[in-house]
This record gives sequence, structure tokens and C-alpha cells, in this order.
Amino acid sequence: MAHPSPVLVVGSVALDSVETPFGKADNVLGGSGTFFSASASHLAPVQLVGVIGSDYPIAKLRESFASRPIDLAGLEQAEGASFRWRGRYRHDFNSAETLETHLGVFSNFRPKIPEPFRAAPFVFLGNIDPRLQLEVLEQVSKPKLVACDTMNFWIESRRPDLLRLLEHVDLITLNDAEARQLTEEFNLVRAARWIMARGPKHVVIKKGEHGAFMFTPTSIFFAPAYPLESVFDPTGAGDSFAGGFIGYLARTGDLSDGNLRRAVVYGSALGSFAVEKFSVDRLLEITPDDIRSRVGDFHRLVTFQQDMA
Amino acid sequence: MAHPSPVLVVGSVALDSVETPFGKADNVLGGSGTFFSASASHLAPVQLVGVIGSDYPIAKLRESFASRPIDLAGLEQAEGASFRWRGRYRHDFNSAETLETHLGVFSNFRPKIPEPFRAAPFVFLGNIDPRLQLEVLEQVSKPKLVACDTMNFWIESRRPDLLRLLEHVDLITLNDAEARQLTEEFNLVRAARWIMARGPKHVVIKKGEHGAFMFTPTSIFFAPAYPLESVFDPTGAGDSFAGGFIGYLARTGDLSDGNLRRAVVYGSALGSFAVEKFSVDRLLEITPDDIRSRVGDFHRLVTFQQDMA
Repeated sequence: MAHPSPVLVVGSVALDSVETPFGKADNVLGGSGTFFSASASHLAPVQLVGVIGSDYPIAKLRESFASRPIDLAGLEQAEGASFRWRGRYRHDFNSAETLETHLGVFSNFRPKIPEPFRAAPFVFLGNIDPRLQLEVLEQVSKPKLVACDTMNFWIESRRPDLLRLLEHVDLITLNDAEARQLTEEFNLVRAARWIMARGPKHVVIKKGEHGAFMFTPTSIFFAPAYPLESVFDPTGAGDSFAGGFIGYLARTGDLSDGNLRRAVVYGSALGSFAVEKFSVDRLLEITPDDIRSRVGDFHRLVTFQQDMA
Repeated sequence: MAHPSPVLVVGSVALDSVETPFGKADNVLGGSGTFFSASASHLAPVQLVGVIGSDYPIAKLRESFASRPIDLAGLEQAEGASFRWRGRYRHDFNSAETLETHLGVFSNFRPKIPEPFRAAPFVFLGNIDPRLQLEVLEQVSKPKLVACDTMNFWIESRRPDLLRLLEHVDLITLNDAEARQLTEEFNLVRAARWIMARGPKHVVIKKGEHGAFMFTPTSIFFAPAYPLESVFDPTGAGDSFAGGFIGYLARTGDLSDGNLRRAVVYGSALGSFAVEKFSVDRLLEITPDDIRSRVGDFHRLVTFQQDMA
């Protein structure tokens, strides 16, 4: 095992209020940067860049992340309200129903990468304006791997910037609906090929409860979502997946096809923990043994031996 | 490799008219018994029991199945119209839109199992009235494995009969919506456990383009659907899956967990061929090498090595 490299993540740091069939949580830690960090920090040191408002419970965040290798030096506190999201899930968890979104200080966010973070070999550009994602890339020096996420809002409103960003990233994670919207291809194999022709060598298409595909120039890999008996709150599953995925790559420093496959499984494992409790609660309590054990469960879930028939 | 055992299948033999974004087909060979037979016959001899009307192009069926080990001695021709289904798929293939269903002679079908078929060690009860599925079981002698399929219509209208049937089958295949409807459990792990508590030792839940789960008393196995670049016509995918699955078990005679897993993959492979052309056209032209090669593709699609991290 090589020494883990740090992962720089730029993303939202928000306060979520969530209702599910199993309960509700008010103003709990949320946002793509928060979930990514809580997840990736099990595998590699994390450098988080984001913005919070003057009303953000920073002591709570510091306490939650106290035992984790997450450097908060890039977390800027600005005058104004924190990013807040309120949403609800029905029994089928198919999609979140957004009840309220208040961007607050996030709407004027301009990421400033602290000097010590600029050499991070692994960079994850969380789901923010592609123009800001590009600004982050101007501030970092030759990362070994740059990955980005995006969402329907940017695909609609910032398409030219997003396409320019694609030329500069090695890997993109997005969900199936976003892949279809971006490429106007319904078929995911074609959609992935469309994206790969525009820059990224690797495309990870997340299908939520239906698992994730990773497309590379030479192969397709699929990992199912773990068949949990109780999904408690799906908020943050995608960012936790990304955290496990990029965190594993940073931990191992190995970008071979075989290792990328393992990284997808680590991503799936961390995503499966994230949904077992509200917020980052479960991500903060799991141990290395829990993760190893879940990865083993994934292996048993899909493994079969070919016969010679 | 043991000598393949015969598979007895009781199901519909219909004429389908299908429209997809890629073209249309009129009055082509369809029905659960037809797809199952075309698929399973690549792996084991098939004994088909069903009914056709006086208008059915029996010469066309005989010609199509001429080179395949499918015994049509149990195919009864009755006075009246054949079962016809007309449906349409939109671009997303999410679900068939049924435009017309004419049951014809199928509505008075009472399966009569020919004497030579009654000792078949593998029995597949295709999607017909559970009362008829039970009648089939009264006519066969101690099969090694009895599997059944069902659908929403029977879950609603024949629930007590279906529950009685469950006590007498070793394995059930059904799709995710049917599993949820039958068990009133949204979560598929809980749904499978509900079903297993009522008889079947093995539950296969098909999720269409999202793959299939097999639940057994000791493990869960998942196989994705193959990420085809072009899905042409999804009609019959589920029955082709069942044909590959049960056909593989009949071919090998091995009901171990490892072999059941391989069987799920053979089912997925045959299902993936079925959707590449209209009707059973693709199933009738594939070779053993094609099947082996697709099974190899599935293996590459999901395989990863666990590290010691």
C-alpha cells in the first residue's frame, strides 16, 4: 500500500432538513463537500474548500470531523445565510422532492484554493457552477486525476462551460438522467461514448438503487447498489459514492483498470453506509473493518465462476 | 458435464404485433412458452405444452424450431382464434404499452401433459392462471425442480391460488413490481424473504434493464442486464431469461449455490440476445459460441479483485 495522497474537494457545505418515511432531521450537516469529505476521509486525507454563512454551526462540523483527516483550512465563512436545503422522500425513495432551496452565501461563492492545497494529486470538483469548477483548475498544479460531478441545472444553464470543463477532466460522475440530458442519448453506452469523445477517459454513471457503471476506453464495469433491507435517508449517497471512489484511488495511487474497478466498489460501499442514517451520521461511525466487510459483501453479491461448458 | 435433462414448460404460444422506435413486426411468434423454449433449447431438450388456435401458422413454428430440441407433442391445436398481443414500446423501453390482447383459445386452456413429459425433472410453469399451474403439478411426477412465473393480473385476481402454488414450487421468477405487489413490501430483500417464507427456496426478482437478483436461504446474487448499445425489442426478455436460467440447471443437473449463480448469468445472457431482434429471431440464430462469449462478457462486466487493504 502506497502512502495515501490528499484529495482536494470543492463543493457545497450546507444544512439539510430531510423528511423520510422513517423520521425527520432538521438543519443537519449536508452538502456535496460534506458528504464527500466524510466518505473519502476513511481512505485518504481530505482538503475541503467551500463556503458557509455566519449562521453555520461550525463548532458542530469541527466536532463531527475532529477524528477524521479532513483539513478545513479552505472552508471560508462569509457574511450571510448558509446554503439550506429542505427535502422529502416518499416510501419508494425514487427521487427527492425539494421543498426549499436557499443558496445564501453559496450563490456568491468563488473558490479560493489555499496555497498548501494546490498540489493535491487528486481533485474532485463537486456539483457547482462549471465556471467555478474551471476556476479551481486554474489554481491547482498538475493533479494526477481530476474528477467532476454536475447536475441538470448546469447542463441546462451552463452547457458551453460544462463542455469546456469536460476537456479538462479525467473522469466525470453523473447520474443516468443527467447523462441522458447532457448527451441526448437514451442508451447509456452511447451516452458514455459521447462524453468520452469530449475529454474524460472515464465516465461513471450512477443509477442510484440500480448501481453504477464505469466506462473506460477499454472496458465497462458494473457494481450494483448493495441490497440493504432498510434505506433510511438517501441524501448524499452520490457524493458519498464519489468520496469512496476518489478516496480509494488517492489511497492506492493506482489508476489501472483493475484498481478503478475496486474504487467503484469502495464508492458503492461508502454510498451504502451513507443511506443507513441521516446526514453523515453513519459515515462518521463506521470503522475500517465495516468497510472491508461491506466490500466483501459486494464481492459475494456478484461473484460467479465461469464453467467450461 | 452430466447429460442434460429435459425441461417441461407450460406457457402461452401467441402471435405478437410489436411497434418499437426501430420498426414494427406483425403476427410474429410470441408468448411465454415460445420465448422460453427458444431460449432453453440452447442448453437442454424442451417439452412445450400450450394451445394454439386454428389460425396459428403451425408450419412456421415447426420450421423455426426444426433444428432445435423442442418437442411440440404437447402443443394442442383448438378450434378458434390464437392468443394475440399487440403492443408498443416508446424510446425508453420502460414498459410495454399494450394496445390489444385477444386471449382466444388460451382463455379455455387446460394443460394436458403428454405421458412422456410427465417425468421431466425440470418444470417451468410459465405465466398462466395459478389454478392451471397447480393442475400441471398434479400431472407430473416428482420433478427435481419446479419453477413458476406469474404476473400482476394473477396476483390481483387469484391470490389464494397463487399462495397455494407457492407452497409447491422450489423457485419463482417475477419482476420487481410483481414482487412488491405480491408481498406489499417495497424493499426487495424483505419481499424476497416474505416469498421464501411461503414455499420457494429460491426467489429470482427480475428488474429488466436493471438486472436480476437471486435470493436463496444463504445468499443474495445479483447479475446486471448486459449494457447493449441497441435494444431492439424487449418483448420476451423475461421468458428468455427464465429459459436460459432453467435450461442451464437442466443441462448441468446441479442445484448448488455456485451453479445457480451461473444459471442466473446464462439467463441474463439469453435475455440479452432476445432483445436484439424481433420475436425469437435472434434466439434462433445464436450459436453456443455466441452464448459462451456473452457469458464471458458478463464475467468481465462485474469482476473485481478484493485487495488486502
